[in-house]
Amino acid sequence: MKMKERLFTPGPTPVPPEVLLAMAAPMTHHRQAAFEKLFASVSGKLKTVFQTTSPVVILAGSGTSAMEGSIVNLLSAGDKALSVNAGKFGERWGQIGKAYGVNMQVLDVPWGEAVDPARIEAALKADPSIKAVYATLHETSTTVLTDIKAIGAITHASGAILVVDAISGLAADVLRMDEWGVDVVVAGSQKALMLPPGLAFAAIGPKAQEAMKKSTLPKFYLSFDKALKNLEKNTTPYTPAVSVVIALETALSQLIAEGIETVWTRHAKLAEATRAGILAMGMALFSKAPSNAATSVLLPENVDGSALHKKLRDEYKITCAGGQDQMKGKIERIAHMGYYDQFDVLVVIGALELALKDLGAPVKVGEGVAAAQRCFAEK
Amino acid sequence: MKMKERLFTPGPTPVPPEVLLAMAAPMTHHRQAAFEKLFASVSGKLKTVFQTTSPVVILAGSGTSAMEGSIVNLLSAGDKALSVNAGKFGERWGQIGKAYGVNMQVLDVPWGEAVDPARIEAALKADPSIKAVYATLHETSTTVLTDIKAIGAITHASGAILVVDAISGLAADVLRMDEWGVDVVVAGSQKALMLPPGLAFAAIGPKAQEAMKKSTLPKFYLSFDKALKNLEKNTTPYTPAVSVVIALETALSQLIAEGIETVWTRHAKLAEATRAGILAMGMALFSKAPSNAATSVLLPENVDGSALHKKLRDEYKITCAGGQDQMKGKIERIAHMGYYDQFDVLVVIGALELALKDLGAPVKVGEGVAAAQRCFAEK
Repeated sequence: MKMKERLFTPGPTPVPPEVLLAMAAPMTHHRQAAFEKLFASVSGKLKTVFQTTSPVVILAGSGTSAMEGSIVNLLSAGDKALSVNAGKFGERWGQIGKAYGVNMQVLDVPWGEAVDPARIEAALKADPSIKAVYATLHETSTTVLTDIKAIGAITHASGAILVVDAISGLAADVLRMDEWGVDVVVAGSQKALMLPPGLAFAAIGPKAQEAMKKSTLPKFYLSFDKALKNLEKNTTPYTPAVSVVIALETALSQLIAEGIETVWTRHAKLAEATRAGILAMGMALFSKAPSNAATSVLLPENVDGSALHKKLRDEYKITCAGGQDQMKGKIERIAHMGYYDQFDVLVVIGALELALKDLGAPVKVGEGVAAAQRCFAEK
Repeated sequence: MKMKERLFTPGPTPVPPEVLLAMAAPMTHHRQAAFEKLFASVSGKLKTVFQTTSPVVILAGSGTSAMEGSIVNLLSAGDKALSVNAGKFGERWGQIGKAYGVNMQVLDVPWGEAVDPARIEAALKADPSIKAVYATLHETSTTVLTDIKAIGAITHASGAILVVDAISGLAADVLRMDEWGVDVVVAGSQKALMLPPGLAFAAIGPKAQEAMKKSTLPKFYLSFDKALKNLEKNTTPYTPAVSVVIALETALSQLIAEGIETVWTRHAKLAEATRAGILAMGMALFSKAPSNAATSVLLPENVDGSALHKKLRDEYKITCAGGQDQMKGKIERIAHMGYYDQFDVLVVIGALELALKDLGAPVKVGEGVAAAQRCFAEK
């Protein structure tokens, strides 16, 4: 049967047709009133999605550019900072810090597990000169959710700045920036915001804005100070990715019409049903603290993860993500962040059952989709 | 009369309908064979447009990100470099260098004039420890063209690296990277490449790749080393702006079907006719070394540039660009880089005649369009 192409990757994610059409809008110049009005509108809507009253700067770049921005704008060479390395993206905080001469203390966490917030509390108590904590809401490489609320309470008490990489978590997992005391939230366009890649975001709270004044690390393109000053005038210091900003208005309008709390609930249901489907077909989960953004299947010893990934992609036209680094070939990651509904879960669980059976795994075909379906019916 | 919206700004520029439709293509994941094939195709075509056999890295960012990349990847703190400041964008080389502690010697050139290459030769002779020269092909703020061919011969003889900001010049003004001995050429998507903003490019020649090995300035997102290593595998280190890369294939195919030499000739004709129109209506040109990418009208004393700009934009729906910094209110810049043909010149010259007349300038209405038209007829 001719299959449709379907994307279940943790970014890029499927983009709604209305947003794709917005990407094709005629080009417009950014230094004029009409674009500034659009920019003001998306800036306001972003605050709702980030759950903050602080400004959210928009960069032309991938998520990593905003991560780097959150280091070079807040710290100086030799400053002490703490980062959580529970996977490939948490590791990146340490790598960026190292590139800039930050004295980054790295908390290593086994892949598949979430950091125990008490370790952060202990580290901050042991060394009160630590200026900032860098964490990850949803660690994409392991599909693990971090308890940012607990960490926020700890950094709030200690005075350290809390920076959260919410690139793949924002609008999928609950994140209440202001309420939880998060100082900087970093995001990217191509995840649950339902946009093509090309924009990075950083919401910058008052404590972080204070820290910016003392930071001496070199920066130019990623200067938050310039971005904030331009944001006040509803513009950017350098040419923005105009098409994605136009599409952002459409995507944010859809999210806000649905309601951010409802968006979170939808993701919780998608994740719950995906987990139920995987368990019911006889497979196991890899993440010990599963997120609502993506789910990873821990594969049986006799199943080659790259063969599974290829079969899903080439035979069933379902593109998920394999394991990275130490988990290469051992897990398959199913993203459900962004433009997904309950029937998409049936599709991906259905394909997973068939592909695993083809590869000789002991799956109970039909049990997975039935369990997912029941999960939705019960709610 | 209800007027059509028309863009004559030096980036963003009008995007052909086929390229806009490519922007609306369904989202695809970048870490798979189909996208890598596309990436290989655009990489090959970029070499033709850049006139080089060297690799051209693609960044998600605005042109400034590639400028910054050309400093942080080639130099170390305290290194001596030379930059040409003949306008707002040449000035940026010095600003980025300063942000990173580069010992940047700045050659100041009056706005409207091109740097005399002999000054660069003299500076390099006076101080052979200067490692790199940073110049601008088309200085967008003044519409001045720099003699890169002459500067290339000088840096080739001296051994210094030549980095050229061709963001608004590439594919409009002639630039033969390899033949002229240019080591790095920086560009952006939203100019004569006929794309929306969101991608920056850097073509990196062998001498620059050698220099990269000794550079110790901090970098992470803008690392050329990582970009080059990924480029060999037809990918990028961080998520690319997928939609703009898809659209890039369409835009480059159009440029290459036209032929790069023909593209240059078209721009030369557009620029020549624009200048002829401006002179024939009784106005003067600001640039003493006019480019083929954009043309600036020097306004009479009694005409307020911002009033002209607003009238063109609001009444005739023609968006050009006003003067920047010291030229604010004194010039109006007409871009003709990218998706323009000879009849677009009649439109913008026609609107300029009418708007200037409305503002009491001594223009000869009809003479400008007639001169432009004759210019095309003669060729």
